[in-house]
Amino acid sequence: MNIDMIRAAADRLAGHARRTPLLTSPFLDEIAGRRVLVKPECLQHTGSFKFRGGWSAVSALDDTTRKNGVIAYSSGNHAQGVAMAATVHGAPSVIVMPNDAPQLKIDNTRALGAEVVLYDRPGGESREDVGAAISSTRNLTLIRPYDEPQVIAGQGTTGLEIAEQAAEMGVTSGDVLACCGGGGLTSGIALALEAEAPNMRARPVEPEGFDDVARSLTTGSIQTNNSQSGSLCDAIITPAPGNLTFPILSRLCGPGMVVSEDEALHAMALAFKRLKIVVEPGGAVALAAALFHGDDIEGDAVTAVCTGGNVDADVFTQALSKFG
Amino acid sequence: MNIDMIRAAADRLAGHARRTPLLTSPFLDEIAGRRVLVKPECLQHTGSFKFRGGWSAVSALDDTTRKNGVIAYSSGNHAQGVAMAATVHGAPSVIVMPNDAPQLKIDNTRALGAEVVLYDRPGGESREDVGAAISSTRNLTLIRPYDEPQVIAGQGTTGLEIAEQAAEMGVTSGDVLACCGGGGLTSGIALALEAEAPNMRARPVEPEGFDDVARSLTTGSIQTNNSQSGSLCDAIITPAPGNLTFPILSRLCGPGMVVSEDEALHAMALAFKRLKIVVEPGGAVALAAALFHGDDIEGDAVTAVCTGGNVDADVFTQALSKFG
Repeated sequence: MNIDMIRAAADRLAGHARRTPLLTSPFLDEIAGRRVLVKPECLQHTGSFKFRGGWSAVSALDDTTRKNGVIAYSSGNHAQGVAMAATVHGAPSVIVMPNDAPQLKIDNTRALGAEVVLYDRPGGESREDVGAAISSTRNLTLIRPYDEPQVIAGQGTTGLEIAEQAAEMGVTSGDVLACCGGGGLTSGIALALEAEAPNMRARPVEPEGFDDVARSLTTGSIQTNNSQSGSLCDAIITPAPGNLTFPILSRLCGPGMVVSEDEALHAMALAFKRLKIVVEPGGAVALAAALFHGDDIEGDAVTAVCTGGNVDADVFTQALSKFG
Repeated sequence: MNIDMIRAAADRLAGHARRTPLLTSPFLDEIAGRRVLVKPECLQHTGSFKFRGGWSAVSALDDTTRKNGVIAYSSGNHAQGVAMAATVHGAPSVIVMPNDAPQLKIDNTRALGAEVVLYDRPGGESREDVGAAISSTRNLTLIRPYDEPQVIAGQGTTGLEIAEQAAEMGVTSGDVLACCGGGGLTSGIALALEAEAPNMRARPVEPEGFDDVARSLTTGSIQTNNSQSGSLCDAIITPAPGNLTFPILSRLCGPGMVVSEDEALHAMALAFKRLKIVVEPGGAVALAAALFHGDDIEGDAVTAVCTGGNVDADVFTQALSKFG
């Protein structure tokens, strides 16, 4: 895993992934007490940064392998990113999803061109067993959501863009906060900043009660979450940092930050009001940290990645009614 | 009023106005029955394209004139655009607003650095009288919201970007739909397309009951609206097309389009769900026309400008609950 892989991914993504802008608002600067630069990956194709990793992985395959197709386990943003990336490449994709996933997510993933295979999660069926059976007969290539070099390389292109766009705005140092699940995005950004903006530092942000990455960084060894459900920030809830991502996070990142669900909802409402973007709870934790935990941040400017916007209307309305 | 003024405005705006991306979604394409390119000017500074015109006008003044300050009559997006443009230039700005304007809009305009002068609208006071008294004693320069060459030039930079960005996506022909009040944006885009994308055609879109521009284009002479209030699409309600804008609209634009308020709300909900952007009712009428009035559009692709996102949480929630 190195910067050359991220640069190569950026070449493959050019003209396909969206180069999202860096947004600002004097109102947010005032709340944070410093300049706040926001990278709105909710505006990326399929509504999250996951399209970058999906495109990077699918485009890195040789033609024959790609023609056989790819497979992913996901009910969320990774599924949609991989599905659209495969479809645009003309490659088949199989997404293994639990049969109790929201119908809308199943429909969306199908509409993006994927074959959705359901497994009986409530009945205790293993998605790996179901997936393995399909993969072996059809020679599908598994695309993991974060512990996958070409996926990390794709997510890292976000960091290349931040380094370049922030410099255009006169910002070449400070913390870059990323909403963090398994660490694919955060580690990719960290590698990109190491090469392109060595005075900027990536930091993972997580919701309270699901701070496996923060604790792993503190202790120096991979820690797990007790629970994997029960958070509004479901998009970034993972069991533990990955075997590939953790060493990168450990070497390059600043301390993890933790925010409450209410702070995430408040950040969503402010992103609505001041930036006119739609952010999901898990995609808002980095902005929440920038706005409400300024005491833990150093420097005159902070960058926050709003990682996704795939939120249902009722949760979004809840954020607006509570903090709008 | 000509293309050279728009190009000069683009030079002045470079590095100051945001170059908003062109967004797409396969789900919107399916609804529209053709490719839909969306220019999200809600992501512009101050939440609407009006910042472009404000910046263009303020930056075009000579230093001495600018130091005296500028004045605008507006309770909405033009006020915020002019206020922020003046403040960043270090110039004073006076915004004349009715004393029954929402407190939030007054507060926002002040927070952007403007001196807000209230006039007694319910009591029948004339804003022009109030403004003229201030202007004459302080040598302020009036910046009109649309019938002002440098404002039209600034709004026209939106058209330059559309021509370039659409071409990068393989689109060099088709209708470009713009939410239309007094016609500053639509006429500016029309001039830009004439020069840079002669096979693309600007078309104004208005809400039902406030279709002065569409009727003016049909009849060939300036028509007025019977009412100037009572629409959710308040941002684009104006009495009539301008004396500067109408001849341009008349020479270059395709027929006007008209959508219902419900169609605008529906487009807002789809922009939330599929593009992750926040659009106000008046800023959504062009997207609504693209999605729901495809029979009146020609070609394989249509471009819609989402002109602003300054919408209160309750109206936004209304759109989501009705069409989310």
